[in-house]
Amino acid sequence: LAKFSWKSPVVVVKVIDSVLRGIAQVAFGNNPLTGLLILIGLFVGNVYSGLGAILCSLTAIFTAKVLNWQDDAVAAGHSNFNAVLIGTVTTALYPSVFGEAMPLPVWGYMVIAAVFTVCVMGGLGRIMEGHNIPALTLPFNIAVSTTFLCMKMAGYGTTTDSPSADLVAEEAIHWGQVFRGTLLAAGHVWAVEDVACSCLVYLALFIFSPILALASYVGAALGTFSGLLVSSSPYAAVYHGVWGYNGFLAAGSISFFMVPNPRILLLAAINAVFATFIQSALNPVYAANGLPVFTFPFCLASVLMLAAAMASGPPSLRVGNPTFP
Amino acid sequence: LAKFSWKSPVVVVKVIDSVLRGIAQVAFGNNPLTGLLILIGLFVGNVYSGLGAILCSLTAIFTAKVLNWQDDAVAAGHSNFNAVLIGTVTTALYPSVFGEAMPLPVWGYMVIAAVFTVCVMGGLGRIMEGHNIPALTLPFNIAVSTTFLCMKMAGYGTTTDSPSADLVAEEAIHWGQVFRGTLLAAGHVWAVEDVACSCLVYLALFIFSPILALASYVGAALGTFSGLLVSSSPYAAVYHGVWGYNGFLAAGSISFFMVPNPRILLLAAINAVFATFIQSALNPVYAANGLPVFTFPFCLASVLMLAAAMASGPPSLRVGNPTFP
Amino acid sequence: LAKFSWKSPVVVVKVIDSVLRGIAQVAFGNNPLTGLLILIGLFVGNVYSGLGAILCSLTAIFTAKVLNWQDDAVAAGHSNFNAVLIGTVTTALYPSVFGEAMPLPVWGYMVIAAVFTVCVMGGLGRIMEGHNIPALTLPFNIAVSTTFLCMKMAGYGTTTDSPSADLVAEEAIHWGQVFRGTLLAAGHVWAVEDVACSCLVYLALFIFSPILALASYVGAALGTFSGLLVSSSPYAAVYHGVWGYNGFLAAGSISFFMVPNPRILLLAAINAVFATFIQSALNPVYAANGLPVFTFPFCLASVLMLAAAMASGPPSLRVGNPTFP
Repeated sequence: LAKFSWKSPVVVVKVIDSVLRGIAQVAFGNNPLTGLLILIGLFVGNVYSGLGAILCSLTAIFTAKVLNWQDDAVAAGHSNFNAVLIGTVTTALYPSVFGEAMPLPVWGYMVIAAVFTVCVMGGLGRIMEGHNIPALTLPFNIAVSTTFLCMKMAGYGTTTDSPSADLVAEEAIHWGQVFRGTLLAAGHVWAVEDVACSCLVYLALFIFSPILALASYVGAALGTFSGLLVSSSPYAAVYHGVWGYNGFLAAGSISFFMVPNPRILLLAAINAVFATFIQSALNPVYAANGLPVFTFPFCLASVLMLAAAMASGPPSLRVGNPTFP
Repeated sequence: LAKFSWKSPVVVVKVIDSVLRGIAQVAFGNNPLTGLLILIGLFVGNVYSGLGAILCSLTAIFTAKVLNWQDDAVAAGHSNFNAVLIGTVTTALYPSVFGEAMPLPVWGYMVIAAVFTVCVMGGLGRIMEGHNIPALTLPFNIAVSTTFLCMKMAGYGTTTDSPSADLVAEEAIHWGQVFRGTLLAAGHVWAVEDVACSCLVYLALFIFSPILALASYVGAALGTFSGLLVSSSPYAAVYHGVWGYNGFLAAGSISFFMVPNPRILLLAAINAVFATFIQSALNPVYAANGLPVFTFPFCLASVLMLAAAMASGPPSLRVGNPTFP
Repeated sequence: LAKFSWKSPVVVVKVIDSVLRGIAQVAFGNNPLTGLLILIGLFVGNVYSGLGAILCSLTAIFTAKVLNWQDDAVAAGHSNFNAVLIGTVTTALYPSVFGEAMPLPVWGYMVIAAVFTVCVMGGLGRIMEGHNIPALTLPFNIAVSTTFLCMKMAGYGTTTDSPSADLVAEEAIHWGQVFRGTLLAAGHVWAVEDVACSCLVYLALFIFSPILALASYVGAALGTFSGLLVSSSPYAAVYHGVWGYNGFLAAGSISFFMVPNPRILLLAAINAVFATFIQSALNPVYAANGLPVFTFPFCLASVLMLAAAMASGPPSLRVGNPTFP
């Protein structure tokens, strides 16, 4: 597709290809089929998330072209994978964070946030490129935190009373539910909780790279089990997969950006645990401003661990494609 | 003036020149006449702000010479523009933040903060220089936040009760007042709210560079209008220009540091909106510690957008002078 | 010792040497005797702190070898000095932060945190190396903040009521007690408050480098006196040395990493004051999440001031050894 200009009629195919790759890039896949399966999963889990992903992707691709990004970066979905998350996460989390159904103007804020992600990706990417580290989904985290706080300041949402402490003192851990949590974690990357969606994500990743799919699953499992260490009973959040998605991404990122060897895989495992610890630590900090932690724990842990992986020993090679314009 | 040594009697003229340039550098002007007009504006708006600017500037220039900064950086006002803001902002905001008239010892804390800005400018400038990004007014933000919190810990200020929620539910937007807000924004850069002061700032910038003056005004207008999106009625703060100063600086910084072309001007406009969104997002975060956001939203947005501007496409050239010792 | 392989029987001696050097590296000493004296001081002050230091050191050295760190970095204690602090600070501060005696499982969290410090040191070290700045004890600060918050989330600790405001309005400053505070500050670096321990620290540093010992003491004194400026009476914390340890480290770091000259020593003094101001500013911010500030104020100030020291003028040379793998 790279041969065709962005001005020819083929542009529609190129844009669809880029949208699908962007959806897959969130989990480090660079393959339109992978993206398509995940998109189907999103629609199965939450129709609005699917629509949000498409709307924000198109906004991001348009912005990137106007800002003169390089063709190959746009084609690979690097300009829009952060916008995908704006679309899925805002639509999925708005009701729980703001305590009301999502009103129409929020779609406008999503478009603005999608424009921001492209600019921040350009800037942050360039700064971090100097250290040979990818910007991951930091642009999404910056844009979504900013926009959510702005919407609160603009008067959106009802003043949610903090829920009364649950008196359920259920101590026993349901291991079957924990296993279900490791599966559900995959969908939580896009903030969608649905078994079918999660299965499609794993299938889609497996098509792109079996190693990546396996590493991501092990990461999700490590994160979920760490969740038992860093939260207190009742462990509902563990069973719902909420403790696994940072581990999923953390292990996946190390496996994807570095050539796997035993030492790298050990670092990937440590990173999954580290990201989950950070998730637990940042939860109350973000909650003080009424925000969930999004994927920031994964970003923080992985930036440090990718640098550590590159630092220790020569036999590992960075295999990432150029992510920046 | 560069020919004369700092030890000759001409030193007085050199120092005055540097003080005035430092005042102008806050808004990216490098011209003593621009600085003089703004200084007059400060005195018109708030006598103490004018005195604070001069006292802190002198402290900073002295510190920079002792620390062996290069002559041209000191002469251009790079060592003291952060200190200028310490002087104007502390004197202007102390009464509202601490709920009492400013007592004498605060001038001592201002001097200490001015010394800090020089050191932080040296350090942060050097770190960010590696990425070819200027430190902007980050040193001021670090020093002023630190000092304000320290003064609170040292027992300054009265325990201000959070004001009871205003019941005024005035929905209609006064567009004339919004326009007045776009004008007042210029003075808020130095934390002074005064129409005459703002007019002098625009006049002073126009003398230095008509393009910069225009870009800054458009930024102030975009910021003020964005303020309607990211705050809720009654829009008193919008009318007072509080939502415009980050946009003013954000648009100005991109226009100043990059060679303007349509793409750069678009980025400058996005930056003005982005900075205002960040301002809204950080307001409650800073307020939790009893602080205003100062110019940190501008700094955060502009660092990212300057990097983005440099990243996307070759035809733009950095025109900033070396800002660092 | 460097001649012997890590696989020969001499490994025991190498490990002991590395543990001791790591303990000394916290205060920039690189000498096993210095480390031994400080370790004795730790045991005198708090037996658990001594044990924690040893356990976490061994964990860190093992992790570093598995992750393939370079021999000389491990031998010099660079892989384990952050872990030393995990061991001493967790054991010393757990009772006051969590309001209960330290239960056994916390030792497990300490081991996990020690593993994290090694990975973060590798990553952060590599990122900051690009700017020629050491990572200092930032890895410890990241790991310990994360772990403390995680333990809170996992249900450790009793809900401590905020202590009722003390009504003692003792205005007079006991200068003898302030002097005692400058002495006690040294032990607070390892979170141990004990006159004998502090004296052993100074003695140990003096053996390694008289200049470093003197600079650290002057820093502790400057910090303690600044503490009077940035806190309010009664000055119990000043008398206990709590305001001196960041100054101790701040002045020591500049003196150690740069070749001392009058300008560098001035910067070291400013750094000690700056770190103490930041300590005061961050106290309420950290306290909002129920955490002490650890040594983060020192790290933040010193990163900026080391960069400033390198920026201003040529006659200063970095003398640090390569800190990174």
